[in-house]
Parts: sequence; structure tokens; C-alpha cells
Amino acid sequence: MLRLFPPPGGTLPAGAIYDDLDWPAPGPGRPFVAINMVCTVDGKAAVAQRAIGIGSATDRLLMRKLRCQVDAVMTGAGTLRAEEFLPTVEEAHAALRRARGLAPQPVGVLVSRSGALPPARRYFHDERFARVLLTTARGAAALDPALAARLDVLVMGEEEVDLAAALRRLRQERGIRWLLCEGGPTLNHALLAADLVDELFLTLAPKVVGGPGPTIVEGPPLPARPPLQLLAVHTAGAELYLRYRLARAD
Amino acid sequence: MLRLFPPPGGTLPAGAIYDDLDWPAPGPGRPFVAINMVCTVDGKAAVAQRAIGIGSATDRLLMRKLRCQVDAVMTGAGTLRAEEFLPTVEEAHAALRRARGLAPQPVGVLVSRSGALPPARRYFHDERFARVLLTTARGAAALDPALAARLDVLVMGEEEVDLAAALRRLRQERGIRWLLCEGGPTLNHALLAADLVDELFLTLAPKVVGGPGPTIVEGPPLPARPPLQLLAVHTAGAELYLRYRLARAD
Repeated sequence: MLRLFPPPGGTLPAGAIYDDLDWPAPGPGRPFVAINMVCTVDGKAAVAQRAIGIGSATDRLLMRKLRCQVDAVMTGAGTLRAEEFLPTVEEAHAALRRARGLAPQPVGVLVSRSGALPPARRYFHDERFARVLLTTARGAAALDPALAARLDVLVMGEEEVDLAAALRRLRQERGIRWLLCEGGPTLNHALLAADLVDELFLTLAPKVVGGPGPTIVEGPPLPARPPLQLLAVHTAGAELYLRYRLARAD
Repeated sequence: MLRLFPPPGGTLPAGAIYDDLDWPAPGPGRPFVAINMVCTVDGKAAVAQRAIGIGSATDRLLMRKLRCQVDAVMTGAGTLRAEEFLPTVEEAHAALRRARGLAPQPVGVLVSRSGALPPARRYFHDERFARVLLTTARGAAALDPALAARLDVLVMGEEEVDLAAALRRLRQERGIRWLLCEGGPTLNHALLAADLVDELFLTLAPKVVGGPGPTIVEGPPLPARPPLQLLAVHTAGAELYLRYRLARAD
């Protein structure tokens, strides 16, 4: 693994690059929010509807390292419908979390407007982590009762999930200070549109795949914002690991 | 401008990074083909159907530097329909071209299956550069005769432009040794699908824009290929300039 930016560059162990992210302490209003995604050089965040397989083993290691530094891992229900997904870290990394004063496993924060969840997924039956569902009144009404009993259901709107209000509540009522969103592209778009994202971690896999996409952000054009700040660039085996800070619109 | 990769990194003048690309001498079969594109961090190669405005002034300088090292600049007719486009370099750079033994201006190679070209574009009326049109029998038949008189029309297929055959002909009959393709995404896809691309220059603009895209490559899934090789990474003002070598499928 090579550090390319900021200078000076140099060699370092693969897992070490995100060991200390130097994140600011979150304010009382909402958690510090980072998005972590992987895409190909031609911008595709999924191949045959799945993100799995785009990144290398190093990318997956870095994903786990990021999870070691947050209270919660957020995902859209679409990701869960597309593939098996768990927000957990392995036992070795759980020790790292404890050393930082974090619970052994992140809370899983699932976002679903419709409440249409795939009940057989391991996500709902893994006893290691707590689950919060952010949904709408309509979604809560549609929810399978057996599934609802396994979730901390927060109704955050009538027809749309109010992510700003939901993040406030996660900070103030559930004690979530740092939150990592791992997609999918529609949830990323909703967070960005509401100006709720502080950092973006992007792995650029050295592949050109074509096909229908999606990209890491799917939705209508976003309002113009100040340019992203480039915090770090690392590489291993032609894969690039980019870290950007987003300026707040205000 | 910072060189980040390959090591050692260091500061250098903005325009200098692609002054000597150290390209291999092209074989007799076809030109050496490089693609140059700009996209946002979320993979979008166009905003409101136009590529203009995504990249910075530095990106545009690098585009001109790349043009200084090729015999021909290729584009799809869709790009020309979407925006004014010229494949030329300024007089200062024309001197650079002469110093390399290249003609003062690159040949413009336009690709259009249908022959539906926008006749009012400056592209067709600029006396500084020669124009080759790669089209189909159908496209040639549909071509405006006044426009056809201003183009070196090569019919390269009945219903589809056979890019492999067209590149052979450009190399063998028109003396094109190095060719730069500047998109759009559909033409990039066709070149990649036919395994005709040697290098990819990608500027990653520090923006997240959402919207419908396209990405730098639009078309059906491409066959799996060996990973791209990362040749160079530079940065200026949070914009990243990436250079990749593509392995041949054979």
C-alpha cells in the first residue's frame, strides 16, 4: 500500500491507512456522516445489480476498518434486497472497536420507505448487532410484524423518510456519533440532496465494465456545491483509495 | 500540480505532466489509441448533456497537451450534436506539434453510423484541420452532399462502423500513428468492446452532481479483461489526473 497524498508519500501496511481518521467530534445536532463506496474507472457501482466483486480484498479490509470507527452502519433496503449484507466487523476488529470505546458491533441502520424488506436475510437474524429501521408511516404499516419485532422502528415521515430528522434522532436518542453509509446509490443521493454528508470514501477499481450501472449516486441533479476537498489518496495494485471532505452548503 | 504516482512525488508545472508520454511506437496494424475523458467523483461524464464545465482550466490544458502528441483526434457525432467541438490546438501548441514532427493540427476523425451531422457546427467550416468521417453505407447515402464535399468519407460497414477495420485503414492509408479519442461514451464503449484501446486518461473532478449521467462508457456489459495498469496519478486543486494502460485481451 502506497500513500500518495498528502505528501510525503510512502509505503505502509494495507490496513493501516484508515486506522486514525482524525474525524472531528460530532456536534449535538446529528452524527458525523461518511459514505463509503467502490466503483469502476467507468463509474459503475454495481455489476449485474451487485457491488460485491468490484473491489479487491484490500478494499474490503478498508471497509471493515471504516466500520471500526463508527457507531452505526447505514444502508438502504435495496442493497439488502440485492445481496446478503451484514454491517458487522470480525472479532479481531471488534477488539479494535472496544479499544476506541465503541460497542463491539455497529448498530445497523436500515432505510426503507416502503417497508418491503426481505425477511430471510441474515441481517434480521444475526444476534450480534442491534437494528434500527428508518421508515415512513406507510412503510411501518406494511411491515411484517415478526420482522418489526426484531427492529427498532423509527417512523420518520408520512411518504418519505426525513433523513435530517432521522439523523437528529439517532444522535440525540440513540447516541450515534459517527455513522457510515454504505449505499446504495439512491440513499447516497438522498443524504447528499439533504446536505448531510461530511466525507466520501471512494475506492476506484482498475476495471472498465460498461453495462447499465448504477453509479455511486443515483437521482435527480444535485444543487451546485463548493468543490470537494481531497483529504487522502492511497493505492495498492492499481486500485485507488480516495478520501474527500464535503463542504457544508451553509 | 503535484505528481503523486509513480514515486517519488513532487511539484511540477501544470502543463508539464503529459509533455512526454513515452508512448510505444505504434505497430503497422493500427494507431496507438488513447481515450481522454473527464468525469465527476460520482462518475458522470456529462451534466445537462454537456461535458463542458465538468473539468477545470487545468483539465482543459491537459486535454490540449494530449492533442499535441497525436496525429488524429476522434469523436462521435453525438458529441458534436451536443456542443460546439473542435479538435484543434492553439498556435502556441501547434509549434510544439511541429517540434515533434507532427502536422500543425491533428486530423479530426468523426464517427457517425447514421450520417446525421449538424452542418452548422464550426467543425465543418474550420480550414485549419483535415476531417475524416467514418460511417456506414447507410450513413454515406444519408449525408448532406455539401457536407460530404468537406469530408474524407470512409465507408466502414453496412449497418455498423467497423472500428477495427477503420483504424487499420487510418494507419495504413492515412498515416495515423497516434490517435486520441475524446468520446463520447458510446464511441468509447465501441472501442473498448473491440479491444482497440491502449490507454485511458481520466480526470476526476471534485464534484458530486447526481443526475442522469452518462458515465464515460455507455453500452452493454463489456467482457472481463485483465485489470488496468495505473501509470500515473497527478493532482491540482483536488482534481485528480489518472493515466491507465489497458492490457490487450490476447
